[in-house]
Amino acid sequence: MEIRQEIKRRAADIEARIAPFLPQEKGFQQTVLDAMEYSVFAGGKRLRPMLMEASYQMFDGTNPAIDDFMAAIEMIHTYSLIHDDLPAMDNDEYRRGKKTTHAVYGEAMAILAGDALLNYAFETVAAALTRNEGDWRIVRAFSVLAQKAGIYGMIGGQVVDVESEKTGQTIDRNRLDFIYRLKTGALIEASLMIGAILAGADEVSVARMQEAGAKLGLAFQIQDDILDVTGSFEKLGKPIGSDAENEKATYVTFEGLEQAKKDVERLSGEAIKILDEFEGEHTFLHDLFFYLINRDH
Amino acid sequence: MEIRQEIKRRAADIEARIAPFLPQEKGFQQTVLDAMEYSVFAGGKRLRPMLMEASYQMFDGTNPAIDDFMAAIEMIHTYSLIHDDLPAMDNDEYRRGKKTTHAVYGEAMAILAGDALLNYAFETVAAALTRNEGDWRIVRAFSVLAQKAGIYGMIGGQVVDVESEKTGQTIDRNRLDFIYRLKTGALIEASLMIGAILAGADEVSVARMQEAGAKLGLAFQIQDDILDVTGSFEKLGKPIGSDAENEKATYVTFEGLEQAKKDVERLSGEAIKILDEFEGEHTFLHDLFFYLINRDH
Repeated sequence: MEIRQEIKRRAADIEARIAPFLPQEKGFQQTVLDAMEYSVFAGGKRLRPMLMEASYQMFDGTNPAIDDFMAAIEMIHTYSLIHDDLPAMDNDEYRRGKKTTHAVYGEAMAILAGDALLNYAFETVAAALTRNEGDWRIVRAFSVLAQKAGIYGMIGGQVVDVESEKTGQTIDRNRLDFIYRLKTGALIEASLMIGAILAGADEVSVARMQEAGAKLGLAFQIQDDILDVTGSFEKLGKPIGSDAENEKATYVTFEGLEQAKKDVERLSGEAIKILDEFEGEHTFLHDLFFYLINRDH
Repeated sequence: MEIRQEIKRRAADIEARIAPFLPQEKGFQQTVLDAMEYSVFAGGKRLRPMLMEASYQMFDGTNPAIDDFMAAIEMIHTYSLIHDDLPAMDNDEYRRGKKTTHAVYGEAMAILAGDALLNYAFETVAAALTRNEGDWRIVRAFSVLAQKAGIYGMIGGQVVDVESEKTGQTIDRNRLDFIYRLKTGALIEASLMIGAILAGADEVSVARMQEAGAKLGLAFQIQDDILDVTGSFEKLGKPIGSDAENEKATYVTFEGLEQAKKDVERLSGEAIKILDEFEGEHTFLHDLFFYLINRDH
C-alpha cells in the first residue's frame, strides 16, 4: 500500500530531523539524557509531527521553526507516555513491544525523564523564538502548544481518565467524551493548528484545522478501543484486552463494536471533508486521515 | 526584626498577586486544580518570586509581565517539590508541617499536578508574551526560565541527587557541587536574572546577577544542610536529621559544621558584594541576602 510506504518514509525522515533537537551536551546527568533518548526513539508512529508537517505543507509553509515544533510536540507526547506508563498510573511494562521507560531506568528516573522532556519541549520553543526574533507566528504556536498540552488539554483528559480508574467509579458518557476530546485529541488538534499557524494561515483556517483535529483525534481514540478488542499483541506491541481486564469503560462499551466502527468512519469522513475545503495540495494529509481509520495497529 | 516583617509582608503580597494566575476555570479536572492550588498555597517562603521582584526593583523595572513570571517560577518550584516528595523519590509525607501533595491526593494525581504546574508555568509565559507582543525582554526571560528549570538546570541537579541516593554510591565532592549548583541554585539564578531582564538591565548586569544567584543558592543549600543537623521539627516543619538517617552525604559531611557555616557566610558576603556594585536602590535585596544566611528555618 502506497500510503504505508509514504508514512514509513516520513516517519524515518522526522526521526532524523528531530534527533538533533534532543539535548546533545553530556554531563553528570547522563542517565536522564539516555532515558529521554530511549523514550523518544522507542518506535513511535510520529503521528503528531507528521500531521503538523502535512498541515504546514498544505498551507505552503516556509517557516524555519517547523522542525523545532515537530520536535517539541513529540517530546511532549513522549513525556505523557512515560508518565502514563508509571506504576502509580497505568503500570505498563511494555509499549510498542519495548520495555517502558520506568521498566528500564526505574521509577524515579522515569518521572524525571518525563519532566525533563516536557521542560525541554519549551526550551526548544524558546530557542526557536530567540532565533527568529519578532516572528509573531511562533508566539502563537507556542501558545497553542502550551494550552493543548495542559490542564485544559492533554493533562486534563489524563487526570479525568486516571481518576475514573482509581476511584473505580463507573464512568459516564460525558466523562468519556471529555477524556477522549482532551487526552488524545488535544495534541492532534495542536499539531494541525501549529502547522497552519507557522505556515501563516488565517485564524479561520486555523480554527477549521482545530475542528478537523478534534474529529480525527476522537476517531483515532475510538479506533484504539476497537483495536484493544480486535487486535493482536504482535501488531499492537502491547497486551490486548487490557481495557476489559482493567474493567475500563470505553467507547466500545457504550456503543458496541459495530457502532464504534461506524462512528470512526463518520468522524474521519467529516474530518477529511474539512481538509478538502482547502485548495492547498494535501493528498498526503487526506490519505493519512483515511489511513488512520483503517489501521490495524 | 524589621527584615522578617518585610519578608512576611512581601510573601503575603506575592501570594495575593500570584493567586489569580492559577487556573480559574473549573471542569471535570477539578481534582488536579485543587491539588495544584493546595500545593502552591501550602506555605512556601516565596523566596524565588521575592528575589525576582527585588532584583526587578533594583533595576527600576516597570514591565507589566513581572507578576506573570513571579507566578510562573513559583509554579515551577512547586512542581519540583511535589515530584521530589513522591514515594519513588524522597518519599516525604510532610513538608513545611503540612501533608505533601501525594499524601493528600494520591500518587497518580500528584504526578499529574506536578506536570500540570510545570506546563501551566509556560502557559502563563505564553499568555504574557501574547499580551505584550514584540516585547523582546519577555522572550529572553522565557528562555532563561526554561533553561534554568531543565536538565542543564534544576532537573539536572535533581537527577544526579536522586541517582546518587538510589544507587547508594558514595557521592564525591564534584557530584555534590554539581547537585547544589543546579538543584537549588538554578532557579535562584533564574529569579535574579529574570527580574533584571524584565527591568531592561544590560547583558553584563544580568550575568552579574546570575553570579550573585549562584553564590546565594549555594549558601542557601549549605544552610539547609546545617539546619538539618542543628534545626528542630517545630521550626523546620519537617523531621530533622533526615539526611543522616538516609545516609545522605551533604556539604556538612565533607566540610564539617563549622567550615560549612563559614562558607555560607563567605558565599553570602560575595553575593552581597555583587549586589552592592549596583547603584539602584536595593536595601531589601541586600537585607534578604543577609537574612538568608542567618535563618534558622
